[in-house]
Amino acid sequence: MIKPLGERIVVKVKEKDMTTASGIVLPDTAKEKPQEGEVVAVGTGKMLECGKVAPMEVKKGDRVLFAKYSGNEVKVDDEDYLIIRQSDILAVL
Amino acid sequence: MIKPLGERIVVKVKEKDMTTASGIVLPDTAKEKPQEGEVVAVGTGKMLECGKVAPMEVKKGDRVLFAKYSGNEVKVDDEDYLIIRQSDILAVL
Amino acid sequence: MIKPLGERIVVKVKEKDMTTASGIVLPDTAKEKPQEGEVVAVGTGKMLECGKVAPMEVKKGDRVLFAKYSGNEVKVDDEDYLIIRQSDILAVL
Amino acid sequence: MIKPLGERIVVKVKEKDMTTASGIVLPDTAKEKPQEGEVVAVGTGKMLECGKVAPMEVKKGDRVLFAKYSGNEVKVDDEDYLIIRQSDILAVL
Amino acid sequence: MIKPLGERIVVKVKEKDMTTASGIVLPDTAKEKPQEGEVVAVGTGKMLECGKVAPMEVKKGDRVLFAKYSGNEVKVDDEDYLIIRQSDILAVL
Amino acid sequence: MIKPLGERIVVKVKEKDMTTASGIVLPDTAKEKPQEGEVVAVGTGKMLECGKVAPMEVKKGDRVLFAKYSGNEVKVDDEDYLIIRQSDILAVL
Amino acid sequence: MIKPLGERIVVKVKEKDMTTASGIVLPDTAKEKPQEGEVVAVGTGKMLECGKVAPMEVKKGDRVLFAKYSGNEVKVDDEDYLIIRQSDILAVL
Repeated sequence: MIKPLGERIVVKVKEKDMTTASGIVLPDTAKEKPQEGEVVAVGTGKMLECGKVAPMEVKKGDRVLFAKYSGNEVKVDDEDYLIIRQSDILAVL
Repeated sequence: MIKPLGERIVVKVKEKDMTTASGIVLPDTAKEKPQEGEVVAVGTGKMLECGKVAPMEVKKGDRVLFAKYSGNEVKVDDEDYLIIRQSDILAVL
Repeated sequence: MIKPLGERIVVKVKEKDMTTASGIVLPDTAKEKPQEGEVVAVGTGKMLECGKVAPMEVKKGDRVLFAKYSGNEVKVDDEDYLIIRQSDILAVL
Repeated sequence: MIKPLGERIVVKVKEKDMTTASGIVLPDTAKEKPQEGEVVAVGTGKMLECGKVAPMEVKKGDRVLFAKYSGNEVKVDDEDYLIIRQSDILAVL
Repeated sequence: MIKPLGERIVVKVKEKDMTTASGIVLPDTAKEKPQEGEVVAVGTGKMLECGKVAPMEVKKGDRVLFAKYSGNEVKVDDEDYLIIRQSDILAVL
Repeated sequence: MIKPLGERIVVKVKEKDMTTASGIVLPDTAKEKPQEGEVVAVGTGKMLECGKVAPMEVKKGDRVLFAKYSGNEVKVDDEDYLIIRQSDILAVL
Repeated sequence: MIKPLGERIVVKVKEKDMTTASGIVLPDTAKEKPQEGEVVAVGTGKMLECGKVAPMEVKKGDRVLFAKYSGNEVKVDDEDYLIIRQSDILAVL
């Protein structure tokens, strides 16, 4: 599996026009549309200027919200994933 | 419930043209209109470059003021919320 | 009363075209007009990257000078206040 | 062989329109096309402001993903290589 | 008297087209014209990220040079002063 | 000889359209053309915010690669040299 | 004499179209023309975020190279000087 570097995570993006199990519906305004996804891999954490590594806040299996157009798209075995920095993750659902 | 990351908080935004219980009325000038809301969830705090986590200043239930257009809108169970960084919060009422 | 966050303070802005008790008159040039006000509330101080909180330099009751157009205006009980960062305060009178 | 400085690495870029051994196919959208390559040399690590050197996360032989147009192209013995910062590497495959 | 905050100082600006006692004449080129003034008050010093306060390098009574258009003008008892950061002071005469 | 300051180095730039001893040929695309040169002098190292000096990674005699248009050209005894920051050096050959 | 603040130095700029004693001739290309000068005064050093002062690398009497248009011009006793940050000094000759 892909191993993201630093504070990056790999996310399987959720299909856009659906309602989540917990009833979360993303807004359809044009301005900013956060998207939902499931974390499939996490990096080792961000290296801080003091030489310590900040532990990750998200873990594999978490469902996360992030602003649309964040991160870089990749395809693995014909499925789309997003590689995104944890600092661009808004919340865990 | 949504668990915001880092120093982010989740806010239930107050309807705009109302007077608050403590008599606070937000200005109606076009320039900058701070908005009021109630904190419904808080993150664990901002990771500092020294490796410590800064404790949050706001807590669940606080009524807060923030500049309009801050943060990202999300919908949970058909209600609007705002995910916003604590550093964008002006004051606790 | 409003409790500003971090290094922010709440200021009651002084009417513009007056002379202060100590005889300070603000310049009327168009370029930059510092304004005077009285501090009515102060935050707990700025969180530094080392994890310490910098103690506030101003306190409730101080009369302060700040550049015009700094901060965010709010109304409490029909009176105008300004929420402004201490780093935008030029001086205590 | 070339010895990259700091947190830089030298990458042998993979031919673009191929499927990888593990079945990874890069997206063909125009926006951002991450590329794959093999690490052939790594620097000693990034010097942090605290005076410590952050250890490298990638090592010689790793297959890595990076955003297109990252880094600087060089030719060694008539082969193309890319010199790129580790912070521009998205993931190890 | 005005008490400037942080690393700010209050300067009484010298009349522009004069020669100083030590024979310093400021250049009349249009590009950048440093100005001379006398320090009448100093702040407590700049708060550093490590939590220490950097001691001030200038003191009351020093004659200082600074780039024109630095700082903010104020009037006290009908006299013009400049509130300026010590980091904008070029030299002590 | 010239003694560069901080993390700067002095480089004798190699004639452009040549193949190096080790067979390195620089790319002729218009976008970015790294250049080769020999280090003739190095500074004492970069001062870090913690008060330590980062030791230099390159030394006199090293052949180095750097992006074209980096640094400042000078002439010493009718020969061209480049004064360039070590952080702009891509690799040692 | 002028006492520059922080990491600033005072430089007596050398007449432009001359060859130096050590045979250094500055390039006449339009792009960037480093200039030569003699250090006549140095500051106490740059205050670092850790609270230490970085010792100066240049001293009175050093001949230095710096990029043209760096620093601020002043006149003392009818002679031109330049007040310039040490970080803008390329090298000591």
